[in-house]
Amino acid sequence: MRRLGVLLSGRGSNLRAISDHIASGSLDAEIAVVISNRPDAPGLTLAAERGYPVMAIPSKGMEREAYDRLLAEELNRRGVELVILAGYMRLLSGWFIRQFPMRILNIHPSLLPAFPGLDAQHQAWEHGVKVAGCTVHFVDEGLDSGPIVMQSVVPVLDGDTAESLAERILREEHGTYSEAIGLVLSGRFRLDGRRVIGRET
Amino acid sequence: MRRLGVLLSGRGSNLRAISDHIASGSLDAEIAVVISNRPDAPGLTLAAERGYPVMAIPSKGMEREAYDRLLAEELNRRGVELVILAGYMRLLSGWFIRQFPMRILNIHPSLLPAFPGLDAQHQAWEHGVKVAGCTVHFVDEGLDSGPIVMQSVVPVLDGDTAESLAERILREEHGTYSEAIGLVLSGRFRLDGRRVIGRET
Repeated sequence: MRRLGVLLSGRGSNLRAISDHIASGSLDAEIAVVISNRPDAPGLTLAAERGYPVMAIPSKGMEREAYDRLLAEELNRRGVELVILAGYMRLLSGWFIRQFPMRILNIHPSLLPAFPGLDAQHQAWEHGVKVAGCTVHFVDEGLDSGPIVMQSVVPVLDGDTAESLAERILREEHGTYSEAIGLVLSGRFRLDGRRVIGRET
Repeated sequence: MRRLGVLLSGRGSNLRAISDHIASGSLDAEIAVVISNRPDAPGLTLAAERGYPVMAIPSKGMEREAYDRLLAEELNRRGVELVILAGYMRLLSGWFIRQFPMRILNIHPSLLPAFPGLDAQHQAWEHGVKVAGCTVHFVDEGLDSGPIVMQSVVPVLDGDTAESLAERILREEHGTYSEAIGLVLSGRFRLDGRRVIGRET
């Protein structure tokens, strides 16, 4: 399993990092398609520059499941095995999630289960935690609630603003996401309850 | 400010660590009294062995605030400046907490705000987080919700049981608590909202 379908809505900084890791040989994967719900997402331009098949499917005004059926059709047509959410700012329907069981990954800028939802970095900063970080998890039908594949920690510094903290977390995301994708593609893990446990090759 | 009043209900492993740090000179403080709500708590024996004033005030059957008035009276009589919860398995009344504003510390075996309440280590293990840890926080009237002074991280390993994880967290608590107590006693911090921010001497 190595064919990735990347969904994004923004600048695609995680797409860039994944692409770099593939180019350097540290991630054995192939980006089969990059899809955005926003036709003007800078991440689409980046994807095209790097030679990946790109597609914009505008979501505005569309019913969620009808939209997700278009999305799934396109992903399946491209032979996508693992769906990578990379700043995809739209909730997926239960229907979509059931089409790709344990085959959708997301990265969230907090140490889940703390600070799910929007503006996680600001939530964490305001709460006054001393450690923050990011979480790669399988997507299930809850909010940022699926089984956790990997987490990385960054310190919160006395002089931090919410913005400087968000920057530090984002830099950490870039390595963590590729490492977690590599683990999932390798299949070297098992689920025990909701715990994702690595196993020897 | 350096006089500590330690409240405990169990074996007192954090009391032991604090006592060791004071003895080695790495924590400049004095244990003015150790109080337990359980007369048979092994931590009381430990405290007596180390020469601290000890007191058992059995809580069984007593109304919460009436009990806490006895507690506050004893702490004040001993000139306690900072109250240290060290495995104290009884909720403090709002009345008590208001008597010692920003002068009660607790250590909790998770990276709060994740996993408040009982059995935090088991909650974390079962949830499948990849990083766990401990949190020293001021006690307010919520459940494990006061401003955070310090947090330390420990990894969760693939082979962990809830018990081996709890052991690793406890070892981390011992250093973290004394360090946090030292910071609070020094007064070298300020509050911004609920963020505890260190400041230069």
